[in-house]
Amino acid sequence: MYPSIVFIPSFLLAPGEEPAGLLLQMLLVFTSAKLLAEVAEQLKQPSVVGQLVAGILIGPSVLGWVHPTEFLAVLSELGVMFLLFHVGLELRGFQLTRIGLEALLPATLGVILPFMGGIAVMMAIGHPTVEAIFVGAALVATSVGITAHVLASKGLLEERASKVILAAAVIDDVLGLLVLAVVSGLAKGRINFVELGLTTGLAVGFTVLVATWGKKAMAQIVPRVEKRTLSVDGEFTLSIILLFGLSLLAIHAGVAAIIGAFLAGMALAGNVGDRVHQMTSGVTEFLVPFFLVGIGLHLDLSVFRHGSTILLAAIILVVACVTKFLGCGLGSMHLGWADATRIGAGMIPRGEVGMVVAQIGLGLRIIPQDVYGTVVFMSIATTILAPPLVTLSYRSLMRREPAGTVSE
Amino acid sequence: MYPSIVFIPSFLLAPGEEPAGLLLQMLLVFTSAKLLAEVAEQLKQPSVVGQLVAGILIGPSVLGWVHPTEFLAVLSELGVMFLLFHVGLELRGFQLTRIGLEALLPATLGVILPFMGGIAVMMAIGHPTVEAIFVGAALVATSVGITAHVLASKGLLEERASKVILAAAVIDDVLGLLVLAVVSGLAKGRINFVELGLTTGLAVGFTVLVATWGKKAMAQIVPRVEKRTLSVDGEFTLSIILLFGLSLLAIHAGVAAIIGAFLAGMALAGNVGDRVHQMTSGVTEFLVPFFLVGIGLHLDLSVFRHGSTILLAAIILVVACVTKFLGCGLGSMHLGWADATRIGAGMIPRGEVGMVVAQIGLGLRIIPQDVYGTVVFMSIATTILAPPLVTLSYRSLMRREPAGTVSE
Repeated sequence: MYPSIVFIPSFLLAPGEEPAGLLLQMLLVFTSAKLLAEVAEQLKQPSVVGQLVAGILIGPSVLGWVHPTEFLAVLSELGVMFLLFHVGLELRGFQLTRIGLEALLPATLGVILPFMGGIAVMMAIGHPTVEAIFVGAALVATSVGITAHVLASKGLLEERASKVILAAAVIDDVLGLLVLAVVSGLAKGRINFVELGLTTGLAVGFTVLVATWGKKAMAQIVPRVEKRTLSVDGEFTLSIILLFGLSLLAIHAGVAAIIGAFLAGMALAGNVGDRVHQMTSGVTEFLVPFFLVGIGLHLDLSVFRHGSTILLAAIILVVACVTKFLGCGLGSMHLGWADATRIGAGMIPRGEVGMVVAQIGLGLRIIPQDVYGTVVFMSIATTILAPPLVTLSYRSLMRREPAGTVSE
Repeated sequence: MYPSIVFIPSFLLAPGEEPAGLLLQMLLVFTSAKLLAEVAEQLKQPSVVGQLVAGILIGPSVLGWVHPTEFLAVLSELGVMFLLFHVGLELRGFQLTRIGLEALLPATLGVILPFMGGIAVMMAIGHPTVEAIFVGAALVATSVGITAHVLASKGLLEERASKVILAAAVIDDVLGLLVLAVVSGLAKGRINFVELGLTTGLAVGFTVLVATWGKKAMAQIVPRVEKRTLSVDGEFTLSIILLFGLSLLAIHAGVAAIIGAFLAGMALAGNVGDRVHQMTSGVTEFLVPFFLVGIGLHLDLSVFRHGSTILLAAIILVVACVTKFLGCGLGSMHLGWADATRIGAGMIPRGEVGMVVAQIGLGLRIIPQDVYGTVVFMSIATTILAPPLVTLSYRSLMRREPAGTVSE
């Protein structure tokens, strides 16, 4: 009942039993992340890259000190939720519904091109159609956490391109849900269009509703809670409840928890005091390394025993980068070359979403083990490639002293 | 591999599968804790009591919405670690080795009386000797988290009695280790005195060493880390690493992780800036409800099916309260009646430590199921009884506007 990390004195452990295993894992993950983030900074690289490399280094691929566990996965998910919450909280004058209109085209093209591109290339090199469709679906969804972290830490969240990226990521998530629903329907042999319509309506409705009314509702509720409660930190408590509540509702509405977390942050932006910013940034700083290292932990280099797998991985990686960059870039050409490049680069990371799609395909026995491995590789590799590209594309906008809200 | 809380859209769930189960649990625990804390405040009761009652209410005993899981247990342990870390960080001019001398007598008598009292009463009502010794051992260790929370939230940490309580809790932990080692040796049929001496030496050595040199070492290290690193939050990073590092070392040295966490906080007190205080208080506020609710979740009223168990529970509870209060109180009579009362009341909670001892006894088949149940009940009941007693004993010292560092 009481496990693992605290109260069992060592003389009561069974031989070979590690005392405080979870605590040791947490210490290793956090320390290696911060150490390599610092190394990356010293080498003038984004700190995110250092933390991802930390995961690869201490993970099964290299040193084998830490293996992915369910506990670390939960910490990782909490980390990216707090990250998006914090990004939403820091945004000033961000109206999702208005910027969403500008982001609609890049988001849509950024879904269609990778999906079609993935299918076409997989079929061209001789894979079965259903398998190709699943790989295409795995290339669709952008994982915005990495880009959000880079932009926040460089103090670039207020730039127009950054706001379009955030809005596009929300739309991308809903479109990704749609693609996944269709593809899963195909795999099971039937697509229920009524259900599909309802799913889409619920996801869009939830997002638009909270984005439109959330802030106004909080402007009413926050002062009342502050006035009526005796608790010292009513604002902070309310923030955490909204974060978890909207994340949970988001999942039930069919979108990712991080979208709910982002909406919660946006609803509170401007309505809560500095103390809430500092306190949630504490939780964020504590948990985000688990998100970044967690991605690196999932890299499994053992899939590359055969030359053919390496070739396949290289092809999928190139298709993933090029189609997303072109799709999102072309869709935002009306904002000018510079912003189009930024948006294209910012949408490249697939992170955990691609991995989940691949895992569903593996579970349904639609994609074989080696293709699964290459999709996981693509997810991680796009995540590592994106931060330098984002930094490069924003170079002309960067001040000499970045006022980061999420630390490097 | 990727479980539970985030990315699985509901149409992919198996029938009956709960999406985001962990997220829902976290929301229920956090919200109920804060809600009942507020109710307790409105009724002029300590907020801790509200949070413990929240755990009983949503737990298996009453509503059955949330059951104790390993994940919640880990959050709970992290919560009490951050709590003690934060208490250590807030203390000004606290020298453990100096105050430890004043606390030595109350701590020692507060171990001997419950141990002997427990054994005597259990044998008097006809239980076997080994069983009586185990129950005695379960009555020994104070769980200081609850009292620390009450004192911090009322802004009473700087009072002399509070400092003696904190120091006594550290000594109590080492003595508790000793008692547990002897009792486990008895149960296994042999006591290795050399090992016992080494264990004690290691625990005492670690604690004294860190308490004496930790602050001076950090005074050297913190400014250098701040100067040399490019990272924005070097101080916060260092704090978290020290917290986890010393907690881990503490476990290996044979004392509880929270002692290491407390020592880490003390070492950093005065050496880090306000930002670290705010950020760690964010993590603490977020995690502490899991600690408090977690205790309530473990209450199992089903042990009270027989009248004899109720009587046994009542007897053990009275012995637990009276012996600890008298032991610690008598030991600190040289500080005057008022402080002696405060110290006696503050040391009453047994919390999770008593439960662990009972569980070890159950695992070794030394204590039967009903005695186990009553010891768990005693652990929780002392925890609920203590906060009002502590508040009462400190009444004459309380200002009208408490400047709490850990919120109510």
